[in-house]
Amino acid sequence: MAQEAYDELLTKLKEVADIEAAISVLHWDQSTYIPPKGNAARGRQMATLSKLAHEKFSDPSVGKLLDKLASFEEEKGPDQFEGALLRYTRRHYERAIKIPAEFMGRFSDHCSKIYDAWTRARQDNDFSSVQPLLEESLRLTREFSNYFPGYDHIADPLIEESDYGMKAASIQKLFSELKEELVPFFDKLLKRPEPTTDFLNTFLPADAQLAFGKKVIQSLGYDFSRGRQDLTHHPFMTKFALDDVRITTRVRENDFSEALFSSIHEAGHAMYEQGVKREFDGSFLCHGTSAGVHESQSRLWENIVGRSLSFWKYFFPKLQKHFPNPFENVSLNDFYKAINKVSQGLIRTDADEVSYSLHVMVRFSLEKDLLESKLSVAQLPKIWNERYEEYLGVRPNDDKDGVLQDVHWYSGPIGGQFQGYSIGNIFSAQSFAAATAALPSIPQEIEKGEFDGLRNWLTNNIYQYGSQYTAPEIIKKSTGGDLSIRPYIDYLKEKFGKLYEV
Amino acid sequence: MAQEAYDELLTKLKEVADIEAAISVLHWDQSTYIPPKGNAARGRQMATLSKLAHEKFSDPSVGKLLDKLASFEEEKGPDQFEGALLRYTRRHYERAIKIPAEFMGRFSDHCSKIYDAWTRARQDNDFSSVQPLLEESLRLTREFSNYFPGYDHIADPLIEESDYGMKAASIQKLFSELKEELVPFFDKLLKRPEPTTDFLNTFLPADAQLAFGKKVIQSLGYDFSRGRQDLTHHPFMTKFALDDVRITTRVRENDFSEALFSSIHEAGHAMYEQGVKREFDGSFLCHGTSAGVHESQSRLWENIVGRSLSFWKYFFPKLQKHFPNPFENVSLNDFYKAINKVSQGLIRTDADEVSYSLHVMVRFSLEKDLLESKLSVAQLPKIWNERYEEYLGVRPNDDKDGVLQDVHWYSGPIGGQFQGYSIGNIFSAQSFAAATAALPSIPQEIEKGEFDGLRNWLTNNIYQYGSQYTAPEIIKKSTGGDLSIRPYIDYLKEKFGKLYEV
Repeated sequence: MAQEAYDELLTKLKEVADIEAAISVLHWDQSTYIPPKGNAARGRQMATLSKLAHEKFSDPSVGKLLDKLASFEEEKGPDQFEGALLRYTRRHYERAIKIPAEFMGRFSDHCSKIYDAWTRARQDNDFSSVQPLLEESLRLTREFSNYFPGYDHIADPLIEESDYGMKAASIQKLFSELKEELVPFFDKLLKRPEPTTDFLNTFLPADAQLAFGKKVIQSLGYDFSRGRQDLTHHPFMTKFALDDVRITTRVRENDFSEALFSSIHEAGHAMYEQGVKREFDGSFLCHGTSAGVHESQSRLWENIVGRSLSFWKYFFPKLQKHFPNPFENVSLNDFYKAINKVSQGLIRTDADEVSYSLHVMVRFSLEKDLLESKLSVAQLPKIWNERYEEYLGVRPNDDKDGVLQDVHWYSGPIGGQFQGYSIGNIFSAQSFAAATAALPSIPQEIEKGEFDGLRNWLTNNIYQYGSQYTAPEIIKKSTGGDLSIRPYIDYLKEKFGKLYEV
Repeated sequence: MAQEAYDELLTKLKEVADIEAAISVLHWDQSTYIPPKGNAARGRQMATLSKLAHEKFSDPSVGKLLDKLASFEEEKGPDQFEGALLRYTRRHYERAIKIPAEFMGRFSDHCSKIYDAWTRARQDNDFSSVQPLLEESLRLTREFSNYFPGYDHIADPLIEESDYGMKAASIQKLFSELKEELVPFFDKLLKRPEPTTDFLNTFLPADAQLAFGKKVIQSLGYDFSRGRQDLTHHPFMTKFALDDVRITTRVRENDFSEALFSSIHEAGHAMYEQGVKREFDGSFLCHGTSAGVHESQSRLWENIVGRSLSFWKYFFPKLQKHFPNPFENVSLNDFYKAINKVSQGLIRTDADEVSYSLHVMVRFSLEKDLLESKLSVAQLPKIWNERYEEYLGVRPNDDKDGVLQDVHWYSGPIGGQFQGYSIGNIFSAQSFAAATAALPSIPQEIEKGEFDGLRNWLTNNIYQYGSQYTAPEIIKKSTGGDLSIRPYIDYLKEKFGKLYEV
């Protein structure tokens, strides 16, 4: 009886997962190969498929099956596929039916409108032209949250969208601790002499850069027989199936760091997705569990591994051979210093490891103030600049490099979109620390260009589970504790303390 | 009232068209960029979307709306979008509901099985290993036709699938006339001295070949802002929207003809699709009307234009500049002769203009005999070889180059799949003759590299209508008569009579 209902539900869910995979293919194509005039129809086609997936998923028959299967779910429990899938599905179904389709349409129309206005506003450095639209975004964001009455904080329903299990209050607590540690440390580093970086800006042909990056991510363990890399304006990772996980990158011929580190970053996301259990393929569980945990793995590979001295002990001689000019005459140590240069930048996406979380925390604090009505949209540019002064000791000269820099608020809700980046930083260090505690030889393996030990540990403890467990569960399972800033702060102080001799 | 029903139906049909466009994107990606291991999941995703599109289209609510709209359809008539769309939809709906979903599943499973067996059988030259499966294909083909009782010939329901408005009897009549003209003419040409073609087999780098081909099809009028060209194993054209019509090609570095002529061929299909009225975008009418008319346009551009002396008067000097070796020392006339060499080949896809239809007619005659039970599958290899002797005067040495050469019978029904190629040849000449009768300057324009006159005539008389009219209607509309072999025979005799001095 339960088995029959379960099979019926499974068939429905697989259909939804297949439609969602198709949407991802359409989106990937739109970002890579679509001809210039093909975009209008593509938008319509993706909207049709999204509507279909939503209709199929939020159909009352799904709810009835879930009700029927309540005791089956409990009996199986989250350690078995069936129990985990039912738990995940129930949670998302309950969310899905709370939001009226009418609102989704209204919100999506507004997002298209403000996105369009933002692309012009940023170019023209004209915040006032998007201000009324951003006020509407704030109203719509509040409306969204209010479909989930009973929250502790109005940002909680937004945070749950991408970081289920986290709440505004707990994140705020972590971020306050982090700020207290990071701001003075960052300040100390800035007082030290700047490393030379000019050799990173030598002209290097795009093809040769991509070829080098490809070899690197192959060594890390990104499987090209189950993926591929293409060029896009903004790098991303996307998954169509367990055996089709693609990444994209961009190349700047005068900035060596761009393609290489974005390739490693996206390969980190992709190895997480390629590492999920085969049993989960084609189901909702076949995806990383949260924005924060996902980002932790891209950051782990990009920064903790990819910007480490051990890593470059192995790869720098290869880089010198691949690009004799300029690297032949650069020492490993100077190179290592250059790729880890700390600076008071204004732009989040260009930030170094130490200041990145500060950029994120500025945004999180502003979102919170806006949602709590402590701050109006009209005041936002001014307060943005003040927060930059407070967190990073620097003040934007214009809104283009200030409040207008990120797409997030101009294409989605004001809230729930940034915290994952910092949770990612925090957990990247925590999970790496757990891996090296279990396998102390990891740093020596990295020096030899061997990454299997680390990747297998991450696969066994994090990747294989996909969305079987929530973020807090997977953090506990893999590290034995809750999310903590300690390993992250220790890591930064150890690494940058040495680098900057403070 | 009618308007309301019409709008309701339109919404449903647009949804189906969007799902079908998504399937095309998934298929294109599968043929171009999918990673090696991505195919299994892709097959499942495409099957899910196909099932969805079929369910949505054959839903009884569609039938009810069509019934409600019967007098609205008549009132509007096929000259108006609404009337034409309703006529087209009704026809396809009535077909769709006649075939049980159970049969479709069974047939599709069988097709996967025989396709798989064929890829091995062809490699091993082992017809006997697919014979029982091909017997099952024949039984399934008959079953398919029998879901459409009342046909004149058992092949008619199959022919209707791709060439609606044509029947086995009328095609047989055309093909008999054609055979009577072509066989002796082909024979005469074969007795003449062979042109030299060795320079066509000089090594030319793939990139340079593609660059030249791209310039050519751009000149013809293929719009790259609404399309793109990629590499695949088998060249094809696919449409995702009016503004996204893509082509693919393949390159052989030792055979100049391959990439260039397949590019022109697919660009011919694509210009048809890019030329449909904007009003039709996103609807069922936004596609060429039949396999035969479609093929007529790819052949018109590939052969009547692309292998003409006028065309090469303009392009040969450019080719000589692009590839000094080998073309610098080749005369226009020798080049023109080489690309039009007639030969007694065994392989349909490599055939010249004169013999191509003979290859097709062999298959059509065999399909007819199989369906009429005049021939058994067991006898097929032997009779295949006899027919080649009869039509082309040549006999295959093995089944690999004989009955096993084409994928069609090993991946679909035995019938309805080949006639379009010859109808295409026939109508390519007939439509070109109509265009030049209306615009006698076309050949002179071609000599100057100007193709707007021809393309605009074709757009105005054929392309813009998409599937608004059936093939017989569009033939009458554009040429004033029915399909006739006369212009095709005149064209071949004139061109090849001169070339071979007969």
